[in-house]
Amino acid sequence: MTISMYESFITGHWFSAPAKRVWSDSATLQAWLDVEAALAQAQADLGLIPRSAADQIGQKALAHLFDTTKVAEDIAHAQHPLVPVLHQLEALCGEPAAGFIHLGATTQNIFDTASALQMRATHGILMEHLDASVTALCSLAMEHRHTVMPGRTHGQHALPMTLGFKIAGWIAELDRDRARLKRRLSSSFTASMGGAIGTFAAMGSIGRQVEARMAERLGLLPTGLPMRSSYDRVNDYVATLATLAATVQKIAQDVVFMQRTEIGEAAEAFHIGKVGSSTMAQKRNPSTALLLISLCRMLRGRAPMALEAMVRMDEGDSSATNVCDTLLPEVAVIAASITETLERLALGLVVHPDRMKNNLALTNGLIASEAAMMSLTPYMGRHQAHHMLYEAAQRSQSEAVPFAQAIREHPLWMAKELPAEVLKALDPNAYVGQSAELTQDIVERVLGRGQP
Amino acid sequence: MTISMYESFITGHWFSAPAKRVWSDSATLQAWLDVEAALAQAQADLGLIPRSAADQIGQKALAHLFDTTKVAEDIAHAQHPLVPVLHQLEALCGEPAAGFIHLGATTQNIFDTASALQMRATHGILMEHLDASVTALCSLAMEHRHTVMPGRTHGQHALPMTLGFKIAGWIAELDRDRARLKRRLSSSFTASMGGAIGTFAAMGSIGRQVEARMAERLGLLPTGLPMRSSYDRVNDYVATLATLAATVQKIAQDVVFMQRTEIGEAAEAFHIGKVGSSTMAQKRNPSTALLLISLCRMLRGRAPMALEAMVRMDEGDSSATNVCDTLLPEVAVIAASITETLERLALGLVVHPDRMKNNLALTNGLIASEAAMMSLTPYMGRHQAHHMLYEAAQRSQSEAVPFAQAIREHPLWMAKELPAEVLKALDPNAYVGQSAELTQDIVERVLGRGQP
Amino acid sequence: MTISMYESFITGHWFSAPAKRVWSDSATLQAWLDVEAALAQAQADLGLIPRSAADQIGQKALAHLFDTTKVAEDIAHAQHPLVPVLHQLEALCGEPAAGFIHLGATTQNIFDTASALQMRATHGILMEHLDASVTALCSLAMEHRHTVMPGRTHGQHALPMTLGFKIAGWIAELDRDRARLKRRLSSSFTASMGGAIGTFAAMGSIGRQVEARMAERLGLLPTGLPMRSSYDRVNDYVATLATLAATVQKIAQDVVFMQRTEIGEAAEAFHIGKVGSSTMAQKRNPSTALLLISLCRMLRGRAPMALEAMVRMDEGDSSATNVCDTLLPEVAVIAASITETLERLALGLVVHPDRMKNNLALTNGLIASEAAMMSLTPYMGRHQAHHMLYEAAQRSQSEAVPFAQAIREHPLWMAKELPAEVLKALDPNAYVGQSAELTQDIVERVLGRGQP
Amino acid sequence: MTISMYESFITGHWFSAPAKRVWSDSATLQAWLDVEAALAQAQADLGLIPRSAADQIGQKALAHLFDTTKVAEDIAHAQHPLVPVLHQLEALCGEPAAGFIHLGATTQNIFDTASALQMRATHGILMEHLDASVTALCSLAMEHRHTVMPGRTHGQHALPMTLGFKIAGWIAELDRDRARLKRRLSSSFTASMGGAIGTFAAMGSIGRQVEARMAERLGLLPTGLPMRSSYDRVNDYVATLATLAATVQKIAQDVVFMQRTEIGEAAEAFHIGKVGSSTMAQKRNPSTALLLISLCRMLRGRAPMALEAMVRMDEGDSSATNVCDTLLPEVAVIAASITETLERLALGLVVHPDRMKNNLALTNGLIASEAAMMSLTPYMGRHQAHHMLYEAAQRSQSEAVPFAQAIREHPLWMAKELPAEVLKALDPNAYVGQSAELTQDIVERVLGRGQP
Repeated sequence: MTISMYESFITGHWFSAPAKRVWSDSATLQAWLDVEAALAQAQADLGLIPRSAADQIGQKALAHLFDTTKVAEDIAHAQHPLVPVLHQLEALCGEPAAGFIHLGATTQNIFDTASALQMRATHGILMEHLDASVTALCSLAMEHRHTVMPGRTHGQHALPMTLGFKIAGWIAELDRDRARLKRRLSSSFTASMGGAIGTFAAMGSIGRQVEARMAERLGLLPTGLPMRSSYDRVNDYVATLATLAATVQKIAQDVVFMQRTEIGEAAEAFHIGKVGSSTMAQKRNPSTALLLISLCRMLRGRAPMALEAMVRMDEGDSSATNVCDTLLPEVAVIAASITETLERLALGLVVHPDRMKNNLALTNGLIASEAAMMSLTPYMGRHQAHHMLYEAAQRSQSEAVPFAQAIREHPLWMAKELPAEVLKALDPNAYVGQSAELTQDIVERVLGRGQP
Repeated sequence: MTISMYESFITGHWFSAPAKRVWSDSATLQAWLDVEAALAQAQADLGLIPRSAADQIGQKALAHLFDTTKVAEDIAHAQHPLVPVLHQLEALCGEPAAGFIHLGATTQNIFDTASALQMRATHGILMEHLDASVTALCSLAMEHRHTVMPGRTHGQHALPMTLGFKIAGWIAELDRDRARLKRRLSSSFTASMGGAIGTFAAMGSIGRQVEARMAERLGLLPTGLPMRSSYDRVNDYVATLATLAATVQKIAQDVVFMQRTEIGEAAEAFHIGKVGSSTMAQKRNPSTALLLISLCRMLRGRAPMALEAMVRMDEGDSSATNVCDTLLPEVAVIAASITETLERLALGLVVHPDRMKNNLALTNGLIASEAAMMSLTPYMGRHQAHHMLYEAAQRSQSEAVPFAQAIREHPLWMAKELPAEVLKALDPNAYVGQSAELTQDIVERVLGRGQP
Repeated sequence: MTISMYESFITGHWFSAPAKRVWSDSATLQAWLDVEAALAQAQADLGLIPRSAADQIGQKALAHLFDTTKVAEDIAHAQHPLVPVLHQLEALCGEPAAGFIHLGATTQNIFDTASALQMRATHGILMEHLDASVTALCSLAMEHRHTVMPGRTHGQHALPMTLGFKIAGWIAELDRDRARLKRRLSSSFTASMGGAIGTFAAMGSIGRQVEARMAERLGLLPTGLPMRSSYDRVNDYVATLATLAATVQKIAQDVVFMQRTEIGEAAEAFHIGKVGSSTMAQKRNPSTALLLISLCRMLRGRAPMALEAMVRMDEGDSSATNVCDTLLPEVAVIAASITETLERLALGLVVHPDRMKNNLALTNGLIASEAAMMSLTPYMGRHQAHHMLYEAAQRSQSEAVPFAQAIREHPLWMAKELPAEVLKALDPNAYVGQSAELTQDIVERVLGRGQP
Repeated sequence: MTISMYESFITGHWFSAPAKRVWSDSATLQAWLDVEAALAQAQADLGLIPRSAADQIGQKALAHLFDTTKVAEDIAHAQHPLVPVLHQLEALCGEPAAGFIHLGATTQNIFDTASALQMRATHGILMEHLDASVTALCSLAMEHRHTVMPGRTHGQHALPMTLGFKIAGWIAELDRDRARLKRRLSSSFTASMGGAIGTFAAMGSIGRQVEARMAERLGLLPTGLPMRSSYDRVNDYVATLATLAATVQKIAQDVVFMQRTEIGEAAEAFHIGKVGSSTMAQKRNPSTALLLISLCRMLRGRAPMALEAMVRMDEGDSSATNVCDTLLPEVAVIAASITETLERLALGLVVHPDRMKNNLALTNGLIASEAAMMSLTPYMGRHQAHHMLYEAAQRSQSEAVPFAQAIREHPLWMAKELPAEVLKALDPNAYVGQSAELTQDIVERVLGRGQP
């Protein structure tokens, strides 16, 4: 019997297995113990405790040595999440090492530093998937940098463009998200060891060196000023993950829209055995893209909880840290799952250029009205051209007259011969602007940087 | 120069003019004064103050008599929003009436009761539009209860249905929203007059009668227990408005989707002069539906602020009430604007049954695969039928073979003659289920109740 | 190894064990099977399928007969959450019953109806705790209906009141939340059996009767119009749970504030062995109240996801239902845990009337300034009295002069003898208003209704 | 009559006047015109249009020349927010310049670039207040780097610290917020001129140069790839403002808590004439701090709307941009108002060291239990010391025995003489750790950098 969506036999496969391993309760226990061990070693480095005690602590700081059933019972009784763990560690270490455990530390120092280690591991997982997604999209964009399709605004055909250009937009946004996450990781997740309220009271003037040394051993930056009630750093990364989620949701939604029965310009991977419906045998749903949207909503929806939990009473406030300590694992696992699923979607995307071509032709030239306007501008100014084409286009739609004919028959023009370039302008394939050039540039920039 | 979106010359027309009048600052001042006057009359009714004083207060409790420029300055100086108003009211009334103003009341009593009056007025406005929207949709649903179109799930054709049925779903949800709002209005917006912390300390044992009498005069229910730090009642109505907003957003999104260039099954009203783009002359955007989605997002997005503001310190907490006092007008104006815009959308909706017919035919019969399955069930069970049709449908899609042929050629069936009812089942028009009956029922139920 | 906060050995004890059992994956599987069985029986009742088939389905619809490891693998392969379950059920039932399973149903029908059953069970759990909480608070309120303490607004002493009155406010709000939840349960969680898009296409004109009969067998109301893209009903209950969470958060926050070291008017239960800190031995933290705040934040924070997920594409949209299907269990478990924890907090609350008394005396009479104002009103009007007392009170605070003296020495009064009732008015114990009466009334009303 | 909180005579003074001027509708119109003018000049620079036309456009691109009443009417009729403005600009310019206006641009290019100009101006306003706030807090921190007060966690006394240290925590967080905002401004607000869907179709291969040149003239960075459906950049800044709001809310809440009647360690500025209550003359509320919390909630609450609005349909989606176009001004004005109010709060903060001293003494030494533990560690190890002190502290609280006595009488120690350093350790003033040093460091770092 399992309870959560991360583990349930129904939905467990939605979520990144490596990320779940990073945040399992036993991995969390190990991360705590890693911090206790690093603290002891840092204190030994600085001569505060005997090296032998630090070594003994390090040798016993192994999650698998712990009786987690008893830990669970003791936590419930003590209503404290760490003290029972320390008691078992003390028993495992024996005297005199037991007396040197957790010296000068407070529980939240251990938890915050441990979660920094876990988030760094998660960051690695999600970056790998994100890099792979971007690479896959770059190939696709280059392959289709000249594949013409309708550009759409407000749900309506706007101008022609190429699929490569559309994907270039996805890549550029993902690349910015990726750069933000990379840049913010180390400033968001730091090592803190300031003790009860962050004054290093229990360690005196050497405390800051202990924090710095411990941080160095763990490969993190020290807080410097370890206020327990400051959460802006972590929140900054969580907000950045939420931004990534919004980017990915937009991409996934684009796929769902392109796969609509009537549009059919792209489809996510299908294999025999994939089932769309328990009752409609024909269904080929974009279920990966729809799941991706769901995961993005789950992540976006959780971000405000981190933000609200920045507002903490005084020097420490478990009404906020309880929320953060349980939210961060969820955010991490969901974020990793988003990038894992995005990679799968990107790798499996199937393109239907024929459907794009058909769709382009649907409006009988209207999709290139701007091209016509620009070609008429030298004759009558942009404003008059817009005005005339507005009337022609509306007539084309109301009376189902081809656009070229409606232009030709417009009172403002009727007397004159329509210049050849105006008619030529109505060919959608001729009006994709810089689609291909922009695609190539972004791909070169992203891949050039990404693969040194 | 105006600042807010409600008043700006650019976006002011998005918002309900009557609702804006209800919540203008001068109307708010008048609502406060109405409460002060009702309080005085209630106290006169119960013999607490002279009737002449109450009458004098009532005669001067008129917003247009106030110098709001001075009020604004004094509020900024006093950092108190009501005391400067009371001072002007005292000056207007003169002695001895001045001494009987605001007796036993606290500022929040006045504000909360006044906003109850304003929300009741808003409720009236929004109900009128909501009723009109439902009525318009009922006509449309009845007109199209037999107009067949594709039903879609996960962005893919699912089963045929009628447009009437689709609209019936909208109506049913709007009708539930409407019923909730009606049912909750009077319990959500009450009259409170418990004084500084709600103990009626300043009025003694007659206080509760004063609250009840004042409430009666204002046509509201009294709180009974006027805790200033209880906001569950108002929040309940705000949450219900947010639910309405989500309903309407779904409807508006359906319209945007139906109007997509490739789908074209419906379109919102268009008139010559409506402009879709500053550069693309052909554009006919579903701008009303898109605006409606925007308004719904604005309302949904504001609801969590009311919820969070329920959590108040002790017996009163302006860090929460400041938020509520300014949020409620926004929520009210946006809600009224949503229903106003919905009415416009509903009244102008244009349907294209021909496009629906074309779309139904797009999949060569696949849309009726469930019908085929049900018709095959007597021969092979639902499960085997689903299995066979799954394979036939996938082949139909992969190899572009008509569905009927793929069924006929399936190994499980090939030897035998395909029963006539199976082929008949593939006609989309024959498989709309109870679309028309459900439509008729819901419309009759809703109109029957709505128009006595 | 477990991943989620609901199961982790660190935080698992925060969450209601019975609620977790209701929403475990195996209980969810059982709920699905219960719905399949009820559907088959309903169809047998109406002569659609043989009774023997329905009975056979019912006998095999037992979660423990299923190979959930295989189900998990098949779900991941099929990317469909129910079809693999149906395949196992078919195998368990054998022919011919296998062919009558899931007839006319779509997956979402099963899921939505099953979750209605699970939420009803959760409702029972949370109501029990909520009732017990209210009862405990009623005792406490009655016990302390005359225990005087400072009422506070904006973090400052306002007027005296009694603890009973404060708790009466909690009770009244909880009682309204309780009533809302009760009233909304059956309309929020319904049985749906409309098939693929809700038209009852697969069952024809008898479909609605099947839905009604199945609903009756399950003790639920039928949807009548089973639109898969309508989620307003469930959202209404979720929003109401979020309102309850905000109420409880306010109560828990009040306890945290009353237990502050400087205030010390109340404290949550303490037992030897409860640990406040890994480094500060003296700590007695309000950890239950702080946990309660955390749980309330988790619930409030999740509510907007349900609201957003109301906005669904067309006739069905798994990008929204994926979110809802996994959100509802979380909301349910957290809600039950909130009420369970509230009950524990309420039962263990310790009151310190002596500290209340001390706190009341802190301001040398200022806390009763309103009483003085009311006693002076007959002499000079409310407005002049407020003005004079404002000056006296500010002098009292700036110059540390007792309030009585500052009044006596105020220029407006100096010449005259201060009436006896003014001095008497400054006794905080004499100015609790209707604290006791209101407390008694609310308790009688709530208990009278609650315990028939 | 005004409607919004920004303009109302009741609440208008809450909001930064300069920020309101930046975002007034006429200033927005001017910003649009500035972009149109810069576009024309950029096109003249590149030889696309005559310089004389660009100059003529520049001379007429003045908001005060426009008839905004007519603009408002035309916008409502056209249901398009820019085309009516262009028509007036055309009329103002006359031929031939009229024909060169808005060439190759789409409405959203103008709006997004204009809002970038407005946000840059807002950034300047808010930075000024933020810098002033930090400077004021630095003075206060230095002044009180040795002023001892209780540090608190979970609402309970934890360890002693100094006020300087507490404020250092505020400063460090504000400084990080400030650095983030500075770093992100130019990447968040860019100039875009890609036309209808971002392909530069209307300007051909020179389009990107036009965008770059226009950006340079406006002092912005060009987008390079002007996707209209990418909003991650702006969202990043909005999320960072929300983080700032959470920081400030924490600070303001600390002030409210320190000003609580029972705690009284600090108070915000008071002046005669500031009114706390319409009925309680004595009230000195922390109304600035409470308002600040309210403003922070308004900002935090709006951030998810920007995040959700990143998810846009296809190449452009007014259902999202409508939200953003009206949300950004609100976010900007509220953010500027937060920093303005923070500056006022910081400058007016009054400290009461005597009350801090009194509060420190309240627990009879318990607040220094960790100091005792550290002093006992050499004798018995940290773990045994914690255990013994836990029992002594709980006895001290249950039996109201001074902590020193409870230690002395503990069975583990009773036989022996308590070492002098243990008793000394119980002096709160001796256990503030690195409070002063950390304060000085942060102030020097922040001021050193801030004031070159």
